[in-house]
Amino acid sequence: MPATNVNRQWIYAQRPSGAVGLEHFKLNEAAVPSPGPGQALVRVRGLSVDPAQRAWMMTRTYRPQLQPGEVMASFGIAEVVESNVPGLAPGDWVDGDLGWQDFAIVTSDSVRLRSKSESLEHLIGVLGITGLTAYFGLLDVGNPRPGETVVVSGAAGAVGCIAVQLAKIAGCRVVGIAGGAEKCRWLEEELGVDAAVDYKAGNLREALKAACPNGVDVYFDNTGGEILEVALALMNLHGRVACCGAVSQYNQSDWSAGPRGLPGVLVAKRIRMEGFLVMDFYKQRKAAEKILSNWIRNGQLKTPMDVVEGLENAPQALIDLLQGKNWGKMMVRVN
Amino acid sequence: MPATNVNRQWIYAQRPSGAVGLEHFKLNEAAVPSPGPGQALVRVRGLSVDPAQRAWMMTRTYRPQLQPGEVMASFGIAEVVESNVPGLAPGDWVDGDLGWQDFAIVTSDSVRLRSKSESLEHLIGVLGITGLTAYFGLLDVGNPRPGETVVVSGAAGAVGCIAVQLAKIAGCRVVGIAGGAEKCRWLEEELGVDAAVDYKAGNLREALKAACPNGVDVYFDNTGGEILEVALALMNLHGRVACCGAVSQYNQSDWSAGPRGLPGVLVAKRIRMEGFLVMDFYKQRKAAEKILSNWIRNGQLKTPMDVVEGLENAPQALIDLLQGKNWGKMMVRVN
Repeated sequence: MPATNVNRQWIYAQRPSGAVGLEHFKLNEAAVPSPGPGQALVRVRGLSVDPAQRAWMMTRTYRPQLQPGEVMASFGIAEVVESNVPGLAPGDWVDGDLGWQDFAIVTSDSVRLRSKSESLEHLIGVLGITGLTAYFGLLDVGNPRPGETVVVSGAAGAVGCIAVQLAKIAGCRVVGIAGGAEKCRWLEEELGVDAAVDYKAGNLREALKAACPNGVDVYFDNTGGEILEVALALMNLHGRVACCGAVSQYNQSDWSAGPRGLPGVLVAKRIRMEGFLVMDFYKQRKAAEKILSNWIRNGQLKTPMDVVEGLENAPQALIDLLQGKNWGKMMVRVN
Repeated sequence: MPATNVNRQWIYAQRPSGAVGLEHFKLNEAAVPSPGPGQALVRVRGLSVDPAQRAWMMTRTYRPQLQPGEVMASFGIAEVVESNVPGLAPGDWVDGDLGWQDFAIVTSDSVRLRSKSESLEHLIGVLGITGLTAYFGLLDVGNPRPGETVVVSGAAGAVGCIAVQLAKIAGCRVVGIAGGAEKCRWLEEELGVDAAVDYKAGNLREALKAACPNGVDVYFDNTGGEILEVALALMNLHGRVACCGAVSQYNQSDWSAGPRGLPGVLVAKRIRMEGFLVMDFYKQRKAAEKILSNWIRNGQLKTPMDVVEGLENAPQALIDLLQGKNWGKMMVRVN
């Protein structure tokens, strides 16, 4: 039995019409539930803050649309407290869609056992959805060859800051696009990109062109919109565009215009443009986790984290993330 | 020596600002040239009429931009008249970029020897760029599996009417999109598509949805624009879009808006969208020509041709093609 009988829960209260705000969530205090047969009670230790959470609120994606009144959905790491699940014992760590709450009821299908040999930060970040998204998106979808030029948008974000480093490991010239001179300096000095481009500084096309004297072979797109359009215009023959994000556009009832020149530019330059979701690569995840883990230990891969303390701050963390305030992977530490 | 000493040539006179018209070409009579060392004189027998010709007039594509004053460029089939090229003898047939003219000077690099065992129509159409474009675009880029639904736009056009038949041979449900009830009936009755959709009849989205009860797995795009946008919205998970045409958009100085919802729809459905040019597959062309030739002989593949008689009618043929008046592959028979 847990030491408390209160389960704090952030309830998804209201569908946003524009930007996500505090008014869209409501804090609730429930009793800590008891696990039934085939269930376990887990205590949430850390929560991943992801742009996809906005999409979950707005529409059906790869998961059902969140309904007002439900606990806000969130990937996270938790510790088993009580278990009626064979293979899960108190003290074990698991990951899964746990929600913004102190305690959750899980089943053997809804969570995956994780080893405590890795830190909470790594399990949520580089060895969680974020790192795997960068890994499979860059290496499997983008398929860069040594010597090629790779451009990553949202490069200071959670996925982007891993993707730029993986591209360096793969022997590429790497250009990161981020918002603000400070983030750009950080990308160049801390994460080793060959050039960083500040999309807020204006004249993105000229700046990106100057940063890519040999054109662009792989573009890892975390943003869509104008940045995608500019990158497409600089692609080399047989270039590849890995479409990762553009999460704002998941809401298909509000389709904005696509990049100009499509599909003509794809034909003229024989470009492959491919959307992906990390779940499609889960069969290969164990191998990827091992490789990423080795690169971390070797010091080849840095894992920038933006840690927010306390479940009570989860809504503000998501709001900040959606405004691009995070540096690297944002997580909420709970309990 | 040829029996005439006049070489009629259509000169590209003026860059169109909008639709291509007769005023953009000028008929010229030159002397029949004599082949120098390493050259051959060929007499043009047939010319291919292709949408790409408009792009060549407007901008640099995979070939240098056409300059006013040059002979209008055109793929065609010719017979060798006089030869200083080892491996080319009078009477041999060759293909290449011969231009809108009676006679051309060629080299061993600018043409390819073709066997007279195939008809002029087949060499220009299904065994030329047109058929190979359909073959590699559908089978290599689209990669359809038996039982999947394939949608082809411009289905009554040169490439489209081969692509729909190849998709049937590949065991797919095939839906063709064309302009007008008559073309749609022809696609269903003559070319064996499972359903044809008339994009001029209005309500394209509903009509295409009704024709694709299991969604769309492969979309072979010859048009871009609204049809592409509608097809994208009906794609299944892991769908493939083979971008073949949208030739009107080759002119990148006049970029129109891209399909709405991109790149979000690519991510949500993990769609691969890929532009291609047939030249990239030329290493495999001999094998493809053999397979196509067998299907023609077996009666599995029809080769609809729209034949215009006489070099003097070449400009009007191109104008008609660009207005979608052709049924199947359009060619001009010369001499």
